[in-house]
This record gives sequence, C-alpha cells and structure tokens, in this order.
Amino acid sequence: MALRKSSLNGKSMITTQDLSREEILEIIQVAEAMQKHRFSDEYTGVLKHQSFLMFFYNPSVRTRQSFEIAATELGGHGLYLEPGGMRLKTKDRAGETIEDVAGVMNRYGCGVGIRILEGKLDYYGRGDEILREYDRYLKVPLVSFAHDRFHPCQGLADAMGYRKHLGEHLEGKTIVHQWGHGALARSHCSVQESMLICSRLGMNVRVAHPPGYELDQEVIDWTKQNCAENSAEFSVTNDPVEAYEDADIVYSRNWMSTDAYSGGEFHKEQEVEKAMQYTDWICDEEKMKLTNNGFFSHPMPVDRTHEVTDEVASGPRSIILDIAENRLHVQKAYMALSMGS
Amino acid sequence: MALRKSSLNGKSMITTQDLSREEILEIIQVAEAMQKHRFSDEYTGVLKHQSFLMFFYNPSVRTRQSFEIAATELGGHGLYLEPGGMRLKTKDRAGETIEDVAGVMNRYGCGVGIRILEGKLDYYGRGDEILREYDRYLKVPLVSFAHDRFHPCQGLADAMGYRKHLGEHLEGKTIVHQWGHGALARSHCSVQESMLICSRLGMNVRVAHPPGYELDQEVIDWTKQNCAENSAEFSVTNDPVEAYEDADIVYSRNWMSTDAYSGGEFHKEQEVEKAMQYTDWICDEEKMKLTNNGFFSHPMPVDRTHEVTDEVASGPRSIILDIAENRLHVQKAYMALSMGS
Amino acid sequence: MALRKSSLNGKSMITTQDLSREEILEIIQVAEAMQKHRFSDEYTGVLKHQSFLMFFYNPSVRTRQSFEIAATELGGHGLYLEPGGMRLKTKDRAGETIEDVAGVMNRYGCGVGIRILEGKLDYYGRGDEILREYDRYLKVPLVSFAHDRFHPCQGLADAMGYRKHLGEHLEGKTIVHQWGHGALARSHCSVQESMLICSRLGMNVRVAHPPGYELDQEVIDWTKQNCAENSAEFSVTNDPVEAYEDADIVYSRNWMSTDAYSGGEFHKEQEVEKAMQYTDWICDEEKMKLTNNGFFSHPMPVDRTHEVTDEVASGPRSIILDIAENRLHVQKAYMALSMGS
Repeated sequence: MALRKSSLNGKSMITTQDLSREEILEIIQVAEAMQKHRFSDEYTGVLKHQSFLMFFYNPSVRTRQSFEIAATELGGHGLYLEPGGMRLKTKDRAGETIEDVAGVMNRYGCGVGIRILEGKLDYYGRGDEILREYDRYLKVPLVSFAHDRFHPCQGLADAMGYRKHLGEHLEGKTIVHQWGHGALARSHCSVQESMLICSRLGMNVRVAHPPGYELDQEVIDWTKQNCAENSAEFSVTNDPVEAYEDADIVYSRNWMSTDAYSGGEFHKEQEVEKAMQYTDWICDEEKMKLTNNGFFSHPMPVDRTHEVTDEVASGPRSIILDIAENRLHVQKAYMALSMGS
Repeated sequence: MALRKSSLNGKSMITTQDLSREEILEIIQVAEAMQKHRFSDEYTGVLKHQSFLMFFYNPSVRTRQSFEIAATELGGHGLYLEPGGMRLKTKDRAGETIEDVAGVMNRYGCGVGIRILEGKLDYYGRGDEILREYDRYLKVPLVSFAHDRFHPCQGLADAMGYRKHLGEHLEGKTIVHQWGHGALARSHCSVQESMLICSRLGMNVRVAHPPGYELDQEVIDWTKQNCAENSAEFSVTNDPVEAYEDADIVYSRNWMSTDAYSGGEFHKEQEVEKAMQYTDWICDEEKMKLTNNGFFSHPMPVDRTHEVTDEVASGPRSIILDIAENRLHVQKAYMALSMGS
Repeated sequence: MALRKSSLNGKSMITTQDLSREEILEIIQVAEAMQKHRFSDEYTGVLKHQSFLMFFYNPSVRTRQSFEIAATELGGHGLYLEPGGMRLKTKDRAGETIEDVAGVMNRYGCGVGIRILEGKLDYYGRGDEILREYDRYLKVPLVSFAHDRFHPCQGLADAMGYRKHLGEHLEGKTIVHQWGHGALARSHCSVQESMLICSRLGMNVRVAHPPGYELDQEVIDWTKQNCAENSAEFSVTNDPVEAYEDADIVYSRNWMSTDAYSGGEFHKEQEVEKAMQYTDWICDEEKMKLTNNGFFSHPMPVDRTHEVTDEVASGPRSIILDIAENRLHVQKAYMALSMGS
C-alpha cells in the first residue's frame, strides 16, 4: 500500500475523537499494510535522517520501545527525553516555559510525543490541558503517548486487533470495559480511548465498574453520541458480571477512582488500598464463559491475579500480544502519514 | 558548500578561544550552508555508522537534543551516557580513572562531548581541568557540552545568529551582557564564551552586573586582548541600565556570584536567595528602548520574569529561537570538520 | 570474511559454556575479521532497520557503549531500557511478569540483552535463573550483558585478546585469575566466564584467592572437565604469589565473598570492609616478574591501587584496552551470527 498525501499530514493526535472516521480507518489500513511488509523500502525511508522527539514526564517501557522502534523502522531516530533531564517551569519551580520548549522543538524535530499522567499532574484533566498548550506552540505534529484523558495509539492498536480477530466490520460487535481491582492505580486514558474509538467504529460499548469509579462525563457523552451515529448501544453498570453476556471483547483494566486527586495531589496509596477491596472485580474463566466466545483484551502491562487471572491472560482467547505488537504498526502509520514529507 | 579537509580535523574544542579566527569563521560558514541544505547528501553520510559519545555529568535537554540530532543528521549515532550509569573515581569514591574511560572511548567512538558544571564540581575551574585531563588521554576530538568556564557551541550559535540579523560583518557592532536576577544560579560558561567569540569577531563587548558577580579574570583579560586586536572596545559596569545605550545585541543572563563555591561545595540555595534580591536586574522594554533597535539574545532555557520580561522574550526583536536552532547547525559543522574522514 | 549461515542463528548466549567449541571459535574469527574491516559493507547492513533491546537492571557504561555501538555498526539500533522506567513484578511489588515482557519483546526486537547482578538480586544464582526464565519466553536470541554467574561477551573478548598477544593456539598457555582487594564488591561473572572459555581453548587455568572467596562449585567442576578434555591443568590456591609463576596472562580482579548475600540482601558495605583488609592481594610489578613475561588482563573498569598498581595497569604488558575494544567486535560477531537474517 503506497503512502499517499493524507489529510493527516501535519496533524496532531491527542485523541482519535479529534480525527475523522476516515482518518482513523486510514491509519489502521496503512498499519495493516506495514505489518505485512514490515521492512519494505516503501516505508524505511519515510523519516530518513529525521528526529522524532519523545518527551516522557512519566516513564514507560512499552511506549518507549514501540515509538523508538517505529521511528527506527521509518528510517529516522526516536530521541528519548527523560523527566530527570528537564528543567521545566512548574507551579513550584523556576524553569522553562512550554512556549520556549515547543519553540525549540519546532526547529529540531519532525514531530513530538508526550506522556504525562498520574503523579505528574495536580488534577484530572491537567494533562490534556498541557498537551493542548504544547500543541498551540508546536508547528510539527504532536502525538499523545498517553495522558490522563486519552491514549490514541492504544485505541488504534486495540481496533486493529479487533479487526484481525472479529473481521473488518466491527459494526454490531460488543465490547465490555470492566474495571479490575489492582495495585497500580492506573489512569483512565486507555479505557476512555477504547470507548471512543470502538463507538466510532460501530461497536456496542459497555462499561462496568464499582460505584465511585465513574469515568469522564464528557467522554461518556461523546461515546453515547458516537453510538447514536452508528446505531450502536451504550450502557454502564455497577455489576461485575452482567456486562459479560454475549460480549465479543472483554477489556479488563484497573483505573483510579473519582477521588484520586485532591488538594493538588495524586493519592496513589489510598487508591490502591481502596481498589484492592473489590476482589470480585477480576476477569476469570467463569465470567468469560458468559461471553460470545469473547476475546480478552488489555493494553498491558497486565496486573495479573488482580485485573485478570493467569488462565485468561495466557489463554487461547487472549489477544494482548497481538495488540501490543499493533502499537508499533499504528504508530508507524500515524507518523508516516502526519510527519512524512 | 563542499566539505574540505580542514585544520579542524582531529581537533578538540574546549573554548573557541583555542581556535584561530579562521577556524571560527569556517565552522560558522559551513553551519550556514548546512542550514540551507539541511538534509543534503553532502552532509548525511559524513559520520555514517559512526558513534559520537555524549557524556553528561549534568543533564540537559537542549544540548542533548541538538547534539544527538546533529549526529543523526550526519548519518551517525549520538550515544547518550548518563551520570547515574557511571562508576567514576572521585575524591570520595573508588571507581574508574579518566585515563581508563578515555582510553576505551578512543576505541569505540569518533568523538566525545562532555558536560560538567554546577553541583558536579568542587570549585570554579575544576570542570575545565577535568575536560583538559580527558583531552590529554583522548585521541579523538573532545567538545565541551558546557562546563564551568566555557560553552563553545553556544558561542558559535550566538555569532551565527548575530551574522544573520546584523549582517556578516560584526566589526563595530555592540553587545551588552547583562546579569539578570533569577532562581537558577547558572554557570559563567555561556556569557564568557560570548565575550570571547564576539570580541574575536570585532564586536564591542560590554558587561554589566552587580558587585560580587565578577567574571573570570583570565577571560576578561583575553576579551580585552581580543578587542585590542580588533579595534573594539571593552567595558564593565555595575549599573543595570547604562550599558544598554546604543547596543545592537542585549544578552541577558543570570550567573552565580564569586561566592558560589566554598569548602568544596556549590551553594545553590544561597546563590538563588542572593540573586533574587536584585529585582532591578531584568531586561525589559524600557531598557531595550535605549538600544540601537537592538536584538534580544539568550542561550536558553530562559528564566522569564527574572532574567527578562515575557514582552521582550516573546517580542519581535527576540532572536532566541534562531540561536537555539543554530546550535544544531554549528555542532553539525564542527563535528563534520573535526570528526569526518 | 563473508558471514555464512551459522549454527548460532537464533541461539541465545547466557554463557560460552552452552556453546560448542566451534561456535566459540567462529564468533572470535568473525570478530577478528570485523576488527580488520570495521565499517565494511559486508557488515553494516546485517541488522538494517532492526532494533536490539538492551535491558539494564544495573547500569553500565562499558556494556552500554559497546552493545549500542555494535548495533549501530551493524546498521541497526540499540534501544537502551533503564531500570527506572520498568514496572516489573517483584516479590514485593505488583508489576509485569517476565512472560509478558518477553512476549512483547518478541514482537518488537531482533534480539534482547539483559544485565542483572549485585543489589538487584536476592541471592547468588538468581540472576542466572531470571535470564533462563526470559529465555524460555523469548523467541529471539537473548545475550547476557553480565549477570551473577556469567559474562560471555567478556570471556570472548578476553580470548580474542589472548590470541592476538599469545598467538592463535592458546593450548598449553597459562592464565592466573588472582583475586584483588578493592572497594567495589564485584560479581563472579567475569572471572568465572574467563575460567570456562580459557579452559575450553586449552589453557592451564589457575585461581588464587583468600579463604572465604571460593567461586561457584559448578563452574569449578566444568572448568576441571574442560581442562581434562584439553590436556590442560587446573589449580586453586590461597597464596597471593605462587600462582604467578611462569604465567602467560595475569587476570587480577576483585570479587565478592561467599557471605555476600544473606537474608535476601546483598551486603555491599560489609563486603568492601572485609575485602579491603587483604592489602597483599594486588597485582604489582614484583609479582609480574615471576611470570613468563606475562600480560596483564582485566575486564575493566579497573579499581587501580587495589586490584592492580598504576605501574602495571598502564605498563607496556597491559592489554586491557585491546580487550575492551574486543568487546565491540565479539558482540558484533555474535549479533550478526545469531540475529542476522
């Protein structure tokens, strides 16, 4: 599949909700072609001698690997910038402004990626504000590497995996996002992105979580609207079992409660303590039997024995490694379409 | 501009003062050509498959980005070595000697860069000693990534910017280096390098700072001598305003006082506290009006509202982003001339 | 020397003892060719656009440099993964399992390297177990970057150095591994790998250490067996001098005592305190005079004045820099043979 000039050229990606349905499908289709012809000359020169700036406020192994390799396989260089080396202005500390950091990045790189979440933020939503502030000053494309609200590359990788295992037409298929207990107090970004992209592609979207773990109301509203536009259904329940019924995909994942931030702080220990009480909230074989021979999905890293049993995570219906691999392909596709010349 | 065999081949750069005037101009002229033809085949193979070793005792985002990208754009690889991973001998700790570290680097890399300043040093001048000790054992070129005394790449980037905005002939133009208050207790290296290179290129050099912030006497002596050789003028004042008069370039920057080191320690907090008292020492629109419609220059990161107002830093006469971009070009030029085969 | 399809293709290397004698010699011979023709087209495309995943539980400058440059010189990319960025499951902490980490690496990289030793382990031997657990889940080759028991690349570099300085036929030559006092409480891996590879290549192997610094009994048994198969001799002594007699190579190195781990902890300070008492255990000119005009060998970094005097380490019979350089060549050779297509 030859790369053509795309409407994505020069375009940032903070969430797939900001893209058109056609752009989402274009990225996935190019990713599928890139997977088939991974080291084809068609792709290995797209970012030749170009540098992609990867800015990690929070560390991550998976995101770093997949983006740095994406840049490498497009012929370019992924430049890893670490939190420790930054001298950024914060509310408590003198340092460099986003205007200045972004202004220099425009001169150096072909694109920028930023990861910021959890303890690096004062309140939920601040990460999205920071990314949008960078984007105002950036002339090159900005892509979220996961922030408090969204994780567009994970959503694209998920959707690519569902297409592989459920077929190209996802319309009418059902995904359940089940909150899982666990010791990691994770962000909302992966599950919220999944709700948005799955509903864009016509899937019925279900969410199940204990009281107190409500997701972003605006994301719920967008998901409802996406479902309405695609004749799909949306539902939320507080029951750990009923949402599994006839589901095609089970997406089990811990996320933090609505009390996770207060007084400008992220309260990780309190979140873990609270979450660990809900021992029923785990994806296991028994619940999987209620599904339509469903697949198990998870953005990894998996918190095994909390979010999901080993039996399910390593079982024959688990597609987590396929989805992890897709991260590489969708990121290459997005980068080629937005940053390639 | 084709790269020719240069007297810089194999040559280290600890300060531009160690280079001839012709070598300084050669680097800048090659950098100007590289800016025009950034990804030309002329340059992208110069360090093909070569590794440039980047040794950061102190972290830095700008220097890391610009050198790692420089290596990439020359077809090579910039290898980032972090302070945490080093097991170097120090006065208090068993570890590897500079002789041994450098001896191995000679076998592996095409060149070496080192950054060392502030809290990594026992006293002012120690960083320069350490670089010169590395240089004694290195057979490949060594370039300073900023150390306590000098910052040659910043000086070259500054001069390249002044040529762009003031014209190729800088003789007779005037630059004022104004100390700024601020919360970062910065090193002397950038401003001292600027004094040296500007005076080499025939500019009148002015320095303004409060009492107690005197710069390196040897650098002052060299600057005077450079000025004398180029029919330029040199002056130092303790007045925060008068030096602006008719200046073509205003370079505002905080630097640490003469008391910053004592007892083998760098006293950052005490420095910040002292510096923050001098609230008059800021570059603002009012002072800029005294200049010859001067440009605002700064090596970044800028400590806005302390060293300079937002109005000036983001204003139409600010050339800080051009200069930051120049870091890439002058570094590529120096690396190509010194490390290319 | 053209690269041919090798029995090493797809093969991991946790210790050279797991390889055949022919495979060991193949790596060294390819490395010798790669040293002669370092940037030959024959080699610079072997891992083109491929990413090699470098996983450092413990930091290291030498290993990082030599592997990252090896990947670069083969046309690929060495991706440095740091301990701080990992969220791995441990006995005390929720996190990702080795099964999952390895499962994703299979999708992303052409090979994996891991370094794990000292304070990252609960007991001696645990590092080897962890590497073998990774290897069970990895489909791409795994190479040890040094772990508690073995350091195969160091052993290969040593042997390549001995061939250069003693001639291709090492049969009948004598190496003494002398424990040195020192302040670094080092692992057994380098010296144990040296014992194994030297005995495979027919050298007489001697070990000298104070009581309480006994090495791994299984490694001693293997070394004895290797010696028996190659008509070579093996001996252990507690005398700091006698083993030097007529030796061709003196390998001086500190290593931790048999009490270094207890209660799930690595007791570094106690080890250093104990080791520093044995001030007689240093390689010096006087002892070197007892040898057969022997060479001084060390895997670096050297703890000078403890393990060896400056006079010997920087003297004319020191081959430590040649051996450090060999790390690059043997690693390129192993990677090309095991990971190249």
